[in-house]
Formats: sequence, structure tokens, C-alpha cells
Amino acid sequence: MARPRLPQSILHPVRLLPLTFFALIVLGTVLLLMPFARTGDGSASLPAAVFTSASAVTVTGLSTVDVSTYWTPAGQVTILALVEIGGLGIVALATVLGLFIGGRLGLRTRLVAQVDMHVVSLGEVRPLFRRVAVTMLAFQSVVAVVLTIRYRGTYFGDWGTSAWHGVFDAVMAFNNAGFSLNPDSIVRYAGDGLVILPISTAVFIGAMGFPVLAELFKEWRHPDRWTIHTRLTVWGSFLLLTVGAVAFLAYEWSNPGTLGGHSWHHKLVTGVEGGIMPRSGGLNSFDWGAVKPESEMIATVMMFIGGGSASTAGGIKITTFLLLAYVILAELRGDPEVVVGRRSIGPAVIRTAVSIALLAVMLVAGTTLIIMTMTDFAFSDVLFECASAFGTVGLTTGLTPRLPVDAQMVLVVLMFIGRVGTIAAASAFVLRRRMPRYHLPEEQPIIG
Amino acid sequence: MARPRLPQSILHPVRLLPLTFFALIVLGTVLLLMPFARTGDGSASLPAAVFTSASAVTVTGLSTVDVSTYWTPAGQVTILALVEIGGLGIVALATVLGLFIGGRLGLRTRLVAQVDMHVVSLGEVRPLFRRVAVTMLAFQSVVAVVLTIRYRGTYFGDWGTSAWHGVFDAVMAFNNAGFSLNPDSIVRYAGDGLVILPISTAVFIGAMGFPVLAELFKEWRHPDRWTIHTRLTVWGSFLLLTVGAVAFLAYEWSNPGTLGGHSWHHKLVTGVEGGIMPRSGGLNSFDWGAVKPESEMIATVMMFIGGGSASTAGGIKITTFLLLAYVILAELRGDPEVVVGRRSIGPAVIRTAVSIALLAVMLVAGTTLIIMTMTDFAFSDVLFECASAFGTVGLTTGLTPRLPVDAQMVLVVLMFIGRVGTIAAASAFVLRRRMPRYHLPEEQPIIG
Ligand SMILES: [K+]
Ligand SMILES: [K+]
Repeated sequence: MARPRLPQSILHPVRLLPLTFFALIVLGTVLLLMPFARTGDGSASLPAAVFTSASAVTVTGLSTVDVSTYWTPAGQVTILALVEIGGLGIVALATVLGLFIGGRLGLRTRLVAQVDMHVVSLGEVRPLFRRVAVTMLAFQSVVAVVLTIRYRGTYFGDWGTSAWHGVFDAVMAFNNAGFSLNPDSIVRYAGDGLVILPISTAVFIGAMGFPVLAELFKEWRHPDRWTIHTRLTVWGSFLLLTVGAVAFLAYEWSNPGTLGGHSWHHKLVTGVEGGIMPRSGGLNSFDWGAVKPESEMIATVMMFIGGGSASTAGGIKITTFLLLAYVILAELRGDPEVVVGRRSIGPAVIRTAVSIALLAVMLVAGTTLIIMTMTDFAFSDVLFECASAFGTVGLTTGLTPRLPVDAQMVLVVLMFIGRVGTIAAASAFVLRRRMPRYHLPEEQPIIG
Repeated sequence: MARPRLPQSILHPVRLLPLTFFALIVLGTVLLLMPFARTGDGSASLPAAVFTSASAVTVTGLSTVDVSTYWTPAGQVTILALVEIGGLGIVALATVLGLFIGGRLGLRTRLVAQVDMHVVSLGEVRPLFRRVAVTMLAFQSVVAVVLTIRYRGTYFGDWGTSAWHGVFDAVMAFNNAGFSLNPDSIVRYAGDGLVILPISTAVFIGAMGFPVLAELFKEWRHPDRWTIHTRLTVWGSFLLLTVGAVAFLAYEWSNPGTLGGHSWHHKLVTGVEGGIMPRSGGLNSFDWGAVKPESEMIATVMMFIGGGSASTAGGIKITTFLLLAYVILAELRGDPEVVVGRRSIGPAVIRTAVSIALLAVMLVAGTTLIIMTMTDFAFSDVLFECASAFGTVGLTTGLTPRLPVDAQMVLVVLMFIGRVGTIAAASAFVLRRRMPRYHLPEEQPIIG
């Protein structure tokens, strides 16, 4: 389980991610405080600017104010830009930080100065990054066009408004951010497959993450060549989509607050949304405050799991979740090693996965307790809100604008940690690093 | 991480624990179905008998009926006997299964046929077991006498009733079972330090577990010689007691439903109870349905953690909980090994601890979802109830008697699994055991 020590110089790029996001949030706050960003006279309030900037940069989408009326079009463009930069920043930084090693797309854990890191030449990655970026931008444009046409035909009177909404929603969807130009998110499009399905598909693809998309782009015809990481992410995404959609439909089918009384078509379209959105997208065509408590609980778990690594989704990530499932399976079978797809998973990776998941549990539980102490909202709703912030999801049962400022700032911290990662955030608090020079004798305490 | 294969013969004693408990529950059900056990004409209902028997044998204390009126004194004696046998069974089986190895009290993980097991000669253990049993019985008698005197002086008119209550409560407390002869548990003794503190102390000691008590008995003057297991359990117990009591007092201090308006003395006494009971004891001198949501959440976590290994407490156990905390700490520090008290903890133990904790999370979350689907109770109350059953605690916010029979049977399964252990229970469902003959290449998927 020995790990090579990193030269100090490597520590710098690792700290790039939190510092970049922090700087972006400060920049966004300053911009949103400008009078041009706020409707009417005066400027936005400091808490609203901080919260919105943090929510945009971390591609979450929670909002303490109504985006459609609180901000001017200039303010909304600022939010759009922060989301695009935040979302692109994740992809770019993941690339610069050297996720890629070896000749073909072998992917490696690169967890914040804890694991050895092979930074390849940028020249090797750049053409690939450009191809993926161009493809994504093309797909994003297609979604924007589809939405614009549909919006013009059914919802808005002019092409200008339709195009603005189409572009905004396409960008939000691809970056898994949940801001909307409507006060009711996408409720007015509920059951409209030509709006909900393009948006949901964009969210689903965005939540895969750049490393997976890059590998799919190169090797989509040869699933047998995919890395473990890509296989886990792709199959895990479809598995969670299916489980989430089926569970959502089962519980909400006849709930008058959500799907009850609607057509089959409406229900199935919303079921797809219900299976995809909670893992990272923050747009909603129905009121999450009206779902059954069972759906709220399942969505909370989905938000906690999140999407693919180095994607715009948050949470502990699909790979972490599935790896832990394999650990349990190996333990129950009595296997000497944890094996995933004919590859052995070493104890160091398992230890990291465990730490990520448990730190996340502690973080979400701890902040839930803090916000419960600050307010009188129900446990399930506060838990949902904290999971949404930590998972940078953006769904809410309606709490966000009703929270006191101190509770809002707790969510800001959660979104930030959810974005940069629990290990990266927690490592900052653990200063001492030691490396014993001898191997201590083993002892097995009784557990369980 | 290789583990030696066990000879098939060893598998038999390992299955002794679940089979013994199952047989005891059946026996208890039959006894409780006898007309002599039920007040009035006729017999107890089958669900009531099954639930009460399972709750007694697993030393939980949840009850769907009012023990004081539903059962005759003969039925109550049956419950008492089932609790004593269930509680003693854990201690005896833990001993027989060979928790002890080596010359001095070296303790070893012995997790259900997964880890090598050194069964020492019974002759080595028997004198020690007898000494501990005698000591515990003596302590139990002291508590019974203290309670009897106090009950006679303040609560009951005659020595017979006082002694019956004193013995019953002392046995329940030491075995961490939550049954009471009063319809309101121990609410009538609220704030009475001469009742609450002896009961709480007995629960605290009972939750340590036989291996720890045996080692403390032998080596209490030399904490430096304690095994890791004993150190973790003892310090962990005091840590959780302190955190639990302080948090309980902080949140309940002025809650009119619990401590508000009471004297300092009353509050502090109840604070000790609030810090001890949720980890395993099921007696309550106040209404857990009236506590603040924050206290309910903290108690839920405490019930999930539980007490010492091979004790009458349930949950994932203190050692599992603390080991996982050390894993996180090692990961954040970048330590190559997980070190506890100058001893290295191997990856196999960590993998087992992780599996126990995650299986428990899945189990409690899954059954919570099932019972939510069956009923309309609030998420936080159902979660509390399921954590109570899994942790074989016995506290309730008032749901138990109001649950439909199918939900009660879910709790029966939870109590059983909580008692025999998640790994033991889950292993029964995983039939295939394989041992690859070659070492697979390692691969590190991106996690987090
Ligand atoms: K989001
Ligand atoms: K109990």
C-alpha cells in the first residue's frame, strides 16, 4: 500500500482546481454586484451575488432569487458565462492535471497529490480535447436549435426570445446547471418530449465526464477495449437512469401533485427526466416539493451518487459508488481481491473510494444538522437541499429562497466542496504529513 | 490481501449464531402463543408473539403491544427469560466461536468464515467466562437491589412489586433490552437519578461487550497493555457518551416536550440517559416522539453506530466506526498505512469494516423505503424506527404499535440481521465462492 511521494512542484497544479474555482466565484460575485446586472435601481444584495456566483461557477443551479426577475439580461448573460467557464474549467483542468497517461486512453486516479501523476505533453491531449470540444459544441448547438424551433412554435411569440431561451437552456443542460430564465424552471414544458427529452439527453451526456466522452469518441465501436473507468461510468449511468426512472414512475404515477391525471406520454417523458435530473441536472418540469417522500428519498440518494468523474456532475461519482459495491460483493464472496472486469482493484484505490464516500456522508449529514439547527424545515427537505448542493445538482423542494443568509452560506460551502471534491477540500485541513520509516506490526480489532 | 481458506468443518460453528437465534425466536413465539402468556381469554396474536419473541431474543425491546397489559406475569417472565438467554447467548457464542487467541487476551477478527479462526481450548476460556459472568451477575444484582429499594421507597406500595420491577429492569438494562413492565417505559422515573443513573450505567457497561469486559477485568490497571479492540471500544464509548449527552442537552434544554421547565438535576440526569440509551438501550424516561428533529437525527446516527463487538448492543459497532475514521484520517494525511495506536491495520480488515458499514446503510435505507411505501409516516420517524431495529436498540417515536403487520415483519427481519450481523446475514445470499488461481493485473479507475 506504499505510495510514492510527490515532488513538491507537483502539488501546485493540484491546488489549481480549488483556487481557480474560488477566484471565479469572487470574479462572478463582483460582476453580479454591478448595477447593470440587477433589475431596477441599485445593485444586487451581497448574499444573492455570492450565492448565485458560487452556484453558477460550480454548475449547480440552486438560486435564492428568481433569476428571471432579479437579474437583468446582462446579469443573466453573466450567469450563462460563469456556467460555461465553470463547466469548461472542469474539463480543461481535468485535462491539464493529466488524467491521461500512456499511449492509449489509459485513465488513472489522480486524487489530489495522493497518487502518482503522469502529466503527458499537452500536445498529445490538445487535438483530442479540440475534437471533443467541437463535437460537444456541435451537439449543444443542435439542442439549442431544436429547443429554439420548439419554443418559437409553441411557447414564445418571437424568434429572439425563443433563441435566447434555447441557447440558455442548452448550455445549462450540457453543463448540468439548473438555472432557468423562467420563474418556474421548465414546468411550462412539462410532458413536452420535444423539450424535456433533448434537455434530459444533454444532461445525461454532460454527466458522463470528459474522460469518458473522449474515450467513447475514440473507441465507441469497441466496448471491449474500454477502460474500467469508462465501462463503470457508462453502464452505471444507464443503470441509475433505469432504476431512477422506474422508481420515479412507480411512486409518482398517480400522485396528483406530479404525474396523476396526465397522459401516458406525459408520464413517460417525465419519468425519463425523473431518472436523469437528480444525478446532476437541476432543471425540473414538476414540483420536487410535491413528490412522494419515497421519491424524495430516492432522489436524495441519486444526488449523493452523482455522475462521472471529471464531469460537470457532483456527488461521490458513479465509479466510487460502483467500486464500493464491488468491494462488498468481494467481501461476501470471500474473494481475496476486488475484481472488476478482469482487473484487480488495489487497496489504495479502495481506501480512497471509502474516504470519499464517508467524508461525503459526514459532510452532508453535518450540514443538514447545522441547517436544521438554523431553521425549522423538515429533516427530509433539508437533507434533500444539502445533497443537492453537495451534488451540485440544483433541485430543491422550495427551501433555497426561504433559507436565512447563514444557511445559504452553508450551501455555498457545500457547493464549493462538492465541486472541488471532498478529499481535496478536507486535505487542506490536515496539515501534518508523515511517512513512518518502518512497518508497524499488524493487529486486527474485532469489527462488526 | 490473500486470505487462507477455511476447512469446511469450521463453517459449521459459524452458522451456529444465526441458527441458534432463529431457533430461540421460534421457541419464544411458541411459548408466547400459549394461553398462559396472554391476559384474558384466548392466546396472543401470531404477529404479536413473533414480534415480541424476536425483539426479546435479539435484546431489542421494540414492542407492538403494551407489555404491561397484553402479557400475563407468566408471559412477562417468558420475555425476561428470552432476553437473558438471548443476551447470554451472544456472550457464550462469542466465546465458543473463539474470539480469544494466544497467551494473553489477544482479540481477533472472526468474521463469519472470512478470516482465519483460532479456536482455543474451552478450558482456557471457561474460568474467565465464569469470573466475568459471576461479576456481571453480581453487578446486575446490585442494580436490582438499588432499584428495588428506590421503587419500594418512592413508587410502589409493596416489596414484591418493587423487587419484580427491580429485577426486570436490571436484567433489561444489562442486556440492553428495552422492555418495561410500565406502559410508559421509565417515564415515571424521569429525572430520578437513583433510578435513571443505575439503569444507564448498566446499559453502558452491557454495551461494552464480553471481550472488552474480560480484558478490563484482567488488565484494568494497565491501559497500556489493552488490545486495540479494547482501547477503541472503551474510549469510543466514552466519546460517544459525551458527544451524545452534550448534543442532547443542547437541543433539548428548553424543549417543553422533554427537558424544558425541569430542574438542572433532572436535565443532567436525563442528559446522561440521552447520551447512553440510543446506542443500544431501549428504555426511555421521556418521549422520543417529542424530541427536536436534530436530537432525533443524532440518536439515529448513534443507533446506527451501536456498541462494542460481541456485546448485547447492535449497530455497525464502535470499532467499525472508529476504524473507518482512522481510514479517512490516514487517507487525508497521505499515510501509506492505517495506523491505530502503533499497530498497522491491514487492508482485509478495512475491507470488512467498509462492507459492514455499507451493507448496514443499504439495509437501513432499503427497509426505510419499504416501510415508507407501506405506510404514511414521516421519513425521519421511519428511519429512526429502522435504525432502532437494526441497532437492536428499542427506542421509538411511537410508530411500533401503529405499523401494519407487514411493516412489523420488516422490523423483525431487521432485528434479526442487526443481531447476527450484516455480513453473516448477507453471506447466506451469496452462494458462489471463487478463488482465482492467478493474480489479475491492477487498474485504477478514477474515483471521486
Ligand atoms: K447541476
Ligand atoms: K436494545
